[in-house]
Amino acid sequence: MNTSTDCLPLDLFSLRQAYLDGTTTVSAVIRQTLARVKDFKNHNIWISLYAESTLMAQAKKLEGLNPHDLPLYGIPFAVKDNIDCAGLPTTAACPGFSYLPATSAFAVQRLLDAGAVLIGKTNMDQFATGLTGTRSPEPYGICKNALNPDYISGGSSSGSAVAVALSIVSFSLGTDTAGSGRVPAAFNNIVGLKPTRGLLSCSGVVPACKSLDCVSIFSPTLAEAEYLLDIVTAYDAHDSYARSDRQLLAADLSATAKLRFGVPKPEQLNFFGDAESQALFAQTVAKLQTLGEVVAIDFQPFLEAAALLYEGPWVAERYAGIRPFIETHPEQLHPVILEILAAAKTKNAIAAFDALHRLQQLKRQTTTLLQGLSCIVVPTAPRIYRIEDVLADPIRLNSNLGYYTNYMNLLDLAAVAIPADFYANGLPFGITLFSTALSDNRLLTIAKRFAGISGQPPTPSNSRYQRLAVCG
Amino acid sequence: MNTSTDCLPLDLFSLRQAYLDGTTTVSAVIRQTLARVKDFKNHNIWISLYAESTLMAQAKKLEGLNPHDLPLYGIPFAVKDNIDCAGLPTTAACPGFSYLPATSAFAVQRLLDAGAVLIGKTNMDQFATGLTGTRSPEPYGICKNALNPDYISGGSSSGSAVAVALSIVSFSLGTDTAGSGRVPAAFNNIVGLKPTRGLLSCSGVVPACKSLDCVSIFSPTLAEAEYLLDIVTAYDAHDSYARSDRQLLAADLSATAKLRFGVPKPEQLNFFGDAESQALFAQTVAKLQTLGEVVAIDFQPFLEAAALLYEGPWVAERYAGIRPFIETHPEQLHPVILEILAAAKTKNAIAAFDALHRLQQLKRQTTTLLQGLSCIVVPTAPRIYRIEDVLADPIRLNSNLGYYTNYMNLLDLAAVAIPADFYANGLPFGITLFSTALSDNRLLTIAKRFAGISGQPPTPSNSRYQRLAVCG
Repeated sequence: MNTSTDCLPLDLFSLRQAYLDGTTTVSAVIRQTLARVKDFKNHNIWISLYAESTLMAQAKKLEGLNPHDLPLYGIPFAVKDNIDCAGLPTTAACPGFSYLPATSAFAVQRLLDAGAVLIGKTNMDQFATGLTGTRSPEPYGICKNALNPDYISGGSSSGSAVAVALSIVSFSLGTDTAGSGRVPAAFNNIVGLKPTRGLLSCSGVVPACKSLDCVSIFSPTLAEAEYLLDIVTAYDAHDSYARSDRQLLAADLSATAKLRFGVPKPEQLNFFGDAESQALFAQTVAKLQTLGEVVAIDFQPFLEAAALLYEGPWVAERYAGIRPFIETHPEQLHPVILEILAAAKTKNAIAAFDALHRLQQLKRQTTTLLQGLSCIVVPTAPRIYRIEDVLADPIRLNSNLGYYTNYMNLLDLAAVAIPADFYANGLPFGITLFSTALSDNRLLTIAKRFAGISGQPPTPSNSRYQRLAVCG
Repeated sequence: MNTSTDCLPLDLFSLRQAYLDGTTTVSAVIRQTLARVKDFKNHNIWISLYAESTLMAQAKKLEGLNPHDLPLYGIPFAVKDNIDCAGLPTTAACPGFSYLPATSAFAVQRLLDAGAVLIGKTNMDQFATGLTGTRSPEPYGICKNALNPDYISGGSSSGSAVAVALSIVSFSLGTDTAGSGRVPAAFNNIVGLKPTRGLLSCSGVVPACKSLDCVSIFSPTLAEAEYLLDIVTAYDAHDSYARSDRQLLAADLSATAKLRFGVPKPEQLNFFGDAESQALFAQTVAKLQTLGEVVAIDFQPFLEAAALLYEGPWVAERYAGIRPFIETHPEQLHPVILEILAAAKTKNAIAAFDALHRLQQLKRQTTTLLQGLSCIVVPTAPRIYRIEDVLADPIRLNSNLGYYTNYMNLLDLAAVAIPADFYANGLPFGITLFSTALSDNRLLTIAKRFAGISGQPPTPSNSRYQRLAVCG
């Protein structure tokens, strides 16, 4: 599985420094990236890749430019296959849905303009409907966990997370409607930033629930996520959900600010039978107590919002997003997804407005709660499953995975999923910090404080950290 | 119809000055108000009134206080009967729906706390569903125009507008979902301010379309509306639709700002066959040209949003707001309203989300357009109808009246309806200035400039202006 080309550091800042120092070239980095793509072929990370010739031509072009001028000069990245990238088809993991976009999505273009090198499009749960990574049909197949291929990678942004976790690329874009940018981060031991809804452009993204969708960022570390957020964030007049109140973006937390964390009351936590997850979260809460005050909060309004997403009318929004395709090509949908979307037709508009009104009340209630806290901390996912378990019970286990993520976009919250600990079997356990809309920068600062004390090596056994040790 | 008690000025600032100077008392003002209530009994303005003894007790109580301490000391006002006022039933013009609220609505309480004296609850189109004032069943009856009782008063806030136009009270509250706070202002020659959605609390208001409803202000003049807006505006944590971005409220227009008015392209104007309205609007546009630049804008996105409200899923939101009552007491609804609400059951959630997405696009498009203008100016209503005409064709003519008002709350706009001119028969013609959310103060400033040059006496023949001349 190892190759001889994997001795270049791929972390964004080291790589940037190497470019600035002239100790490596874009061509060398891209060659290494492509070698690692081959190494991990069995993980089913990719849906499409740019041709090597295209990438090498781009490398040469960059080599004629000054890395000082481009904040992401020569940094390789990947994009989830529900986000348009010029020159590659957008499939949303549905072969029959495939189309060739004329232009790249606004967010992707921001990264390209900053000098980043896009390698290809990543595997995902079809139409971003899933949290497992198992809902991708042939020829793409199930995307496997970076640390243990018997386990799920998490979804729906499975390939984007695994590509980063395995150091194939330096960072990637996913999307996140109900947890798709956070659950795979947790299961692959990386950072998953789900920015405030409407902060990053969703132009050129296949809608899941259009009013809730976010483009998300996967990176190995928080510092990289912060750097990338700054580059990719920009107002896009063509995105009707672009936020108009972005001038209210909260400043970073001041260095001396006292922290006050909310965690759900013990009886409201749910690990779906996994005692080890429960113990790991308890240990994490103990670490939080060294950083600030930890208070038990009522998690019920968050759970009620989550129930609205899964049992309420939003399945109709999901259906609306791809309605023409579903209605003409139902046979081309993954059977599990077809089963889920069928519920859309049973929802009426009166109930939809009832749910919107109830959601608005919950938003007010949860916002008020969050205003008294630095953030709330939850497990990112209640537990992890083996692929075979999910295949045997695909809807219920998927739903379990969203227990701590589903409500986030409905309630207009920002969230960052970070590594926190490891299970005895070496798989990672992650937590998520979240707060009100536009708290993104503050959350990243708090998360860095946690990372600073967690004493937790952010290292899956086959990631670049170990490999670099071998090479270095 | 005249009485001998009507010689006190009722305009807010004169009345306040009289109190400050000690030249009148609250008791005297309330006595005059109650006399005028009787004078205009045939207009069907009121649904309920406080007992004279209650009002006189309140007057006495105020007389023990210092008018300097209370910005609305002793100012009589009225409230539409879909807004809770402690001690009087809330009926929404449906006798079977009536309930006695324990407390007053947040917005009403703000006014009471400022010393204003609430006289009673006003007539309206049932469940705020209408723009005519004819949809109020017995025993309330059709509310008649202040200037000519053969004509409609406009609705749904009919009684609140007529009570101000006839100087029974100094100001009043209405509600405005699709034009209910503007059309009656136009038809009765007063100012109707529809503030930005979520700026004034809707706690204690019977929902029409809960996500779109606004409490609105009726007053004789713009200066009074501005004074009242400042008093009544406050964040209400219990109103789930209270705006969280109110800190972005635009400042007043600077005195030297150049004005740039948008008006719909001529072919997009519609006066539904009334050439005189067309001519009056053309004359108004000519007056605007003396104030600033006037540019023709594409009105189509506004019209498309309006169509969504009437033909799209929002009828389901209207239904959702009073669902338990409709489903248990359908026979108690006005037949026209029952017919309208029946359409709610035909709407599905998929189409509702499609409409929400389309609306979001239209919002973006219209916001961008408005950012290049000081405001857009339209007729408030395309024309006015006789009561008998509306009774003969109640749904179509009502719908015509909303041509320039329906889209406003869907697109999250602020608007102020002001008197502009008169028809040959003495009925008033009004215009509306509107712009983006939170432009309220700016709109009022621009409207005052227009009022300053319009050379238009704001005087219906039987209003206090004439009466004061007689008395003074």
